Amino acid sequence: MAAPANTLGIIAGGGELPLALARAARADGRTVFVLALDGMASAADVAAFPHAFASLGELGKALKLLKEAGCVEVTLAGKVARPEFSKLKVDAKGAWALPKIVAAALKGDDALLRSLVGIFEKEGLRVVGSKDAAAGLVAPFGPLGAVKSSPEHEADIRQAVKVALTMGDLDIGQAAVVCEGLVLAVEAAEGTDAMLQRVAGLPAALRGTSENRKGVLVKAAKPNQERRVDLPVVGIRTVELAAAAGLAGIAVEGGAGLIVNRARVAEEADRRGLFVIGFAPQDYARD
Amino acid sequence: MAAPANTLGIIAGGGELPLALARAARADGRTVFVLALDGMASAADVAAFPHAFASLGELGKALKLLKEAGCVEVTLAGKVARPEFSKLKVDAKGAWALPKIVAAALKGDDALLRSLVGIFEKEGLRVVGSKDAAAGLVAPFGPLGAVKSSPEHEADIRQAVKVALTMGDLDIGQAAVVCEGLVLAVEAAEGTDAMLQRVAGLPAALRGTSENRKGVLVKAAKPNQERRVDLPVVGIRTVELAAAAGLAGIAVEGGAGLIVNRARVAEEADRRGLFVIGFAPQDYARD
Repeated sequence: MAAPANTLGIIAGGGELPLALARAARADGRTVFVLALDGMASAADVAAFPHAFASLGELGKALKLLKEAGCVEVTLAGKVARPEFSKLKVDAKGAWALPKIVAAALKGDDALLRSLVGIFEKEGLRVVGSKDAAAGLVAPFGPLGAVKSSPEHEADIRQAVKVALTMGDLDIGQAAVVCEGLVLAVEAAEGTDAMLQRVAGLPAALRGTSENRKGVLVKAAKPNQERRVDLPVVGIRTVELAAAAGLAGIAVEGGAGLIVNRARVAEEADRRGLFVIGFAPQDYARD
Repeated sequence: MAAPANTLGIIAGGGELPLALARAARADGRTVFVLALDGMASAADVAAFPHAFASLGELGKALKLLKEAGCVEVTLAGKVARPEFSKLKVDAKGAWALPKIVAAALKGDDALLRSLVGIFEKEGLRVVGSKDAAAGLVAPFGPLGAVKSSPEHEADIRQAVKVALTMGDLDIGQAAVVCEGLVLAVEAAEGTDAMLQRVAGLPAALRGTSENRKGVLVKAAKPNQERRVDLPVVGIRTVELAAAAGLAGIAVEGGAGLIVNRARVAEEADRRGLFVIGFAPQDYARD
């Protein structure tokens, strides 16, 4: 069976992003092939697309599957939990690459992802970012829904951008929550969803409520990160959890962050009274 | 009844620190008076000392009680949750000070605490740090117990110190957890205990276990903070939670951080196989 020559290979971790990418690329008229990572992508989720499963250590198998599917371009998307390297199922090629990957992992998330990108490129695959794979997912600049931010919110956004970019410089995380000048939470290994749930659990005096929304979530790309992988993502769940934490809104880096299900995100934010905006980092000069 | 003239007034929030301070000052031969903050200090805890309760907004009552008890020096100690200012019980003097305090609170924790210190000093009380009130609580330099840190731990400490001091510069928090080069968590409004509980909930691949301890908790004073209040504290609970999170040890800023129940902290850390050390920030130059 001859596979189409411009198939987009989507190496899929968990969450909504890989599927949104697959749908968007297909809507653009591309053939897609989803290489689902064991334990991260769910079988039900990838069933709608040509797909196969491989473990993070089965590099040989992954490359073979991608090439058989006619993939020249691949993109990495979705949440990938750091594996317990000692328990990983590996094939021969995976075993060869693993020491490099482990060494890179010790330097941080960004080094780990750069190392993975390098390995795929060495095998003749072109690694493209979500932006190139599906331009419609990229966060725009300005408001997404009908709710607008106030000058008080802008002050919190300014501070949260500064905090998030500082975290990013240190390769710690991409998100922060600030409410009336107080940094309520910064994201590290736990991820944005867990961070927002933590904010919802803080004393009511520190944060807003659904009746009186206060504070913002900011998500920004790490200043020096590999821009083809691991960009900040906002989805419906982000809006739901931000709402539950009493926040007034969400600001994501325009032109870099990704919004999954843009129309529904805007709708949900409007319904709950939150703003969602794309911000330009250059508007928030750091001192 | 004539009160002794050199009574130490301890304005007590929650946690073990105020009581440890009271015990240590008494052991040094000083008379103490505990002004317990409503809703933060518990009645059972302060029962062993001459004490009275006041709300955070009852500044007039607090000053009167402290002066009647013969306090010339006061120290602020313990965890103080930011009050819901709109629901605070206030007296006349509290009402006068409140706008300043609220304005300072909007600038961050450090500004809030500096404002409180300023108010007490304007009333003729001398505000001293825990260090002056009870030198025995100050973290020493070097190891506390029998367990030593390895070169791998030292690398994690180095990184966590950098992260914690960066967080401190931004007035975000005083603590960070790093495991094999990966920043697992940084502390903001949730506090150290909640941060450690979060680390215990991370995937096992990211962290250590009680069989194979990895990673460190670092607690450092904020570089420019008011050094008489809100210093980083390590106690038995810190050791227990760090142990439950699979960490290899705890490093606290020597000469600045406070250790409550030093002997029992060392004992508990030894029993669970964790190191506890006091580090010198100048040994960890930041780039």
